[in-house]
Amino acid sequence: MGTRIDEVSGPGRVAGPDEGISAEELALAARNHGLPLEALRYDVTPAGLHYVLVHYDIPYADGEGWELTVSGRVRQPLTLDMERLRAYPPVTVRVTMECAGNGRARLTPRPVSQPWLVEAVGTAEWTGVPLRTLLAEAGVEADAVEAVFTGADHGVERGVEQDYQRALPVGAALGEDPPVLVAYAMNGAPLPPQHGCPVRLVVPGWYGMAHVKWLRDIRLVDAPFEGFQHTVAYRFRSDPDDPGTPVTRMAPRALLVPPGFPDFMSRARVVRPGPVELTGRAWSGYGPVTGVEVSEDDGRHWRTAELGPGGPHPWAWRPWSARWEATPGSYVLSVRASDAAGHSQPVEQPWNRGGFGNNLVQRVPVVCLDE
Amino acid sequence: MGTRIDEVSGPGRVAGPDEGISAEELALAARNHGLPLEALRYDVTPAGLHYVLVHYDIPYADGEGWELTVSGRVRQPLTLDMERLRAYPPVTVRVTMECAGNGRARLTPRPVSQPWLVEAVGTAEWTGVPLRTLLAEAGVEADAVEAVFTGADHGVERGVEQDYQRALPVGAALGEDPPVLVAYAMNGAPLPPQHGCPVRLVVPGWYGMAHVKWLRDIRLVDAPFEGFQHTVAYRFRSDPDDPGTPVTRMAPRALLVPPGFPDFMSRARVVRPGPVELTGRAWSGYGPVTGVEVSEDDGRHWRTAELGPGGPHPWAWRPWSARWEATPGSYVLSVRASDAAGHSQPVEQPWNRGGFGNNLVQRVPVVCLDE
Repeated sequence: MGTRIDEVSGPGRVAGPDEGISAEELALAARNHGLPLEALRYDVTPAGLHYVLVHYDIPYADGEGWELTVSGRVRQPLTLDMERLRAYPPVTVRVTMECAGNGRARLTPRPVSQPWLVEAVGTAEWTGVPLRTLLAEAGVEADAVEAVFTGADHGVERGVEQDYQRALPVGAALGEDPPVLVAYAMNGAPLPPQHGCPVRLVVPGWYGMAHVKWLRDIRLVDAPFEGFQHTVAYRFRSDPDDPGTPVTRMAPRALLVPPGFPDFMSRARVVRPGPVELTGRAWSGYGPVTGVEVSEDDGRHWRTAELGPGGPHPWAWRPWSARWEATPGSYVLSVRASDAAGHSQPVEQPWNRGGFGNNLVQRVPVVCLDE
Repeated sequence: MGTRIDEVSGPGRVAGPDEGISAEELALAARNHGLPLEALRYDVTPAGLHYVLVHYDIPYADGEGWELTVSGRVRQPLTLDMERLRAYPPVTVRVTMECAGNGRARLTPRPVSQPWLVEAVGTAEWTGVPLRTLLAEAGVEADAVEAVFTGADHGVERGVEQDYQRALPVGAALGEDPPVLVAYAMNGAPLPPQHGCPVRLVVPGWYGMAHVKWLRDIRLVDAPFEGFQHTVAYRFRSDPDDPGTPVTRMAPRALLVPPGFPDFMSRARVVRPGPVELTGRAWSGYGPVTGVEVSEDDGRHWRTAELGPGGPHPWAWRPWSARWEATPGSYVLSVRASDAAGHSQPVEQPWNRGGFGNNLVQRVPVVCLDE
């Protein structure tokens, strides 16, 4: 009687009607982390506050001896060490990145995986080499249809042992919109271990699963990639037998800096009567954010917030603000964004089996005291 | 009818017999984070991997305009800006810091608070000014009995609005064992926001609640401090009416780097047959770690691990290692430490109402495949 990998690795599942967060979900929540919402105040998120999701283990690596290969359907395969990567003219792009599973734990029924509420986001300045520069040097063959990116992180997921791998269509890999980057620095410093040290992919506008960390190989292939993270995970599905559609770009979302001060346990907010400046950030992977609205009555009424300048960073969140005259009572603050592509945030819960791409509006309970 | 703070801030409680992790506990788990256990490999934890627990909000502060005051029962009150703090001869101490609530979520019944499993720890090199240097300059009056440390983080906890405050007896504040530090750098860089930027207290050997972040005042007082974090929180109690005893130093604990590779969801580990080097760290706030034992059968049998050198860092964890010849089957690995003061780790669960100071041994399920 053999010992099999499926003894520790079960199929995907959805929580039962009254099932609280399980020990397994908690173990993921304890090691990964979101952006503490008060850190939405920073234009660029300090590295330690940016959300982190790691599928397997964080590889124990610095740049020493690291090699990134470009292989497969190319005329000239490349082997690049960190010194050679750093010798290309560096490009820096400010990018808002969100986990595709953000919001999952608020769904009913709840897909069992990393249990994010609303906080799986961050904005960083990534520095590296445009992917198209490396691909031009390698020379992509005419029959290549996708580029497959392999990370050094190794594990098992729903019974499948794997290195973490994701692919992009050749058009996206070679394109300038978004400007895909092979990045070795975050906010001006070498990548921290949990963000892919020494080198990672950055795909502006796409959910985090596309930004392959601990990148060690880029392989051009002549048939669509059918790896686990494309055909099993990261698909919008209504039921397990639904082939589904792929998860790609970030749906629009706005978040607010919770005003006042918090209760330790409930995280509900306390303010005192008077004017309160509501501020926050809004982003979309489909195009510029064109509108932000706020509500103080749990989404029954909405009013327009002021959008800050888009500025020179089209792939980063935009600031917004709104004035609120707080009077004693209990409130639920919400905010919602819409983008130039016509997408906006739902106030009723959408649902899919993986809990992906959810952008249900944030709810922030606030009590305004009598004085 | 007024709006009161206790509408959002309830009393402490213990979870019901079948109660899963609540939305409130999850909200804490999503913003705070532990050390991903594979990061036990680092002698000094990179800042973004060190555990973080924030009671209220992370203050939005850099060093600009920050002032630390030394006040109360001193002959010469001090007001120190960052430039003046940095002008003292700097001292660097390597310190292992653990949250007093580490292990809480494994307790039955479960105290409802930040739901840590075993990962709320990290080791950093803190640089700053010895507290005794500042107190000597201020001149502590003979009637001073405690020093009260006030942070800039403000919130409400069990109905009590407060700035985060903790105290130390004057003897401990002035002593060299442990060498209490007013720190402005972590691992050679300015403190990250979540670790107390621009200045925090570091109390080697004590649980994290003593290491007051965003430190803005040190007040010498002539009567024992009776603030919330001393008299309500951070006490060992068997029931709500028990006055309890204070939580102070870290009980011994050893953790192991989970071997092999993980399943994404269960975090169980997979290895293949053959020799496996088990490694990890062990620490105690009561004195040097004197022994580490490992078990591969869920604590039924134990054998001695090899302790790495204690070295020049008496307040930091020590490495340990043990060889394991893995053969196909299912295992639960555990490790336990004992210290020079005679403390060791229990294999049966201790319990207290706050879930403090728990050092029940770690359990790491591992499957060794047939090949």
